[in-house]
Amino acid sequence: MDFEVGQSATTTRMVTEEDVNEFARISGDTNPVHMEESFASKTRFGRRIAHGAFVTSLISKVAGNQLPGPGSIVLSSSFSFHSPCYIGDTITAKITIKRYRKDKPLIFTSCEVVNQDGECLVTGDVAIYFEKVDS
Amino acid sequence: MDFEVGQSATTTRMVTEEDVNEFARISGDTNPVHMEESFASKTRFGRRIAHGAFVTSLISKVAGNQLPGPGSIVLSSSFSFHSPCYIGDTITAKITIKRYRKDKPLIFTSCEVVNQDGECLVTGDVAIYFEKVDS
Repeated sequence: MDFEVGQSATTTRMVTEEDVNEFARISGDTNPVHMEESFASKTRFGRRIAHGAFVTSLISKVAGNQLPGPGSIVLSSSFSFHSPCYIGDTITAKITIKRYRKDKPLIFTSCEVVNQDGECLVTGDVAIYFEKVDS
Repeated sequence: MDFEVGQSATTTRMVTEEDVNEFARISGDTNPVHMEESFASKTRFGRRIAHGAFVTSLISKVAGNQLPGPGSIVLSSSFSFHSPCYIGDTITAKITIKRYRKDKPLIFTSCEVVNQDGECLVTGDVAIYFEKVDS
């Protein structure tokens, strides 16, 4: 695979109440800030927010499907959560290559997730190894 | 809430094929290393492995349900992935308090995920803020 520094890929989705409920079910994280409107309304957020781990799973999607794509394996990740993702938000995850190894299938990326207003929800760094497999 | 350095909480679950399929569906990450036995068999792993983001969602579960529990919000996370989680593995996620603020509801934790053989799959650090809400 050929890469360039600055090369990027994105994916966008709307986050529905069903997404949040499903993520709670599969992860087992039933924190009421995600699941209970009455609880969430008393927090600084004012209403239910998506799990941070769900928001960053969109970065996993970009890595696994697009850049570097099938066969990719995240070796390390580091995320900072700046603003909440609300139900109904449309969020875009982006991965950008910062550097890469020429002797190994390994890329070092920066990543971010923004909402429909351009507000930055998450920033981070992800190192991704990948195997090229003849299928 | 009162905390102590060294205080910890864990959760354990078996990872099923259905879990991996569901996580792929909800995240949209259909990387064949997770989804296609024929592809995965040609990688260094030899068979399908769970998404790293699914494995670390177990840490989100411990934070949201147990330590510090309901109302918790992850501010930052940093994970290193050392070994894969295979379908059928029984994994345990653990959060341990490294330090905490006395003036703010904020704990700094180390975390790990191990499998049924005690093999370490993931290590990391997570900073967690929490709101106490009268429900």
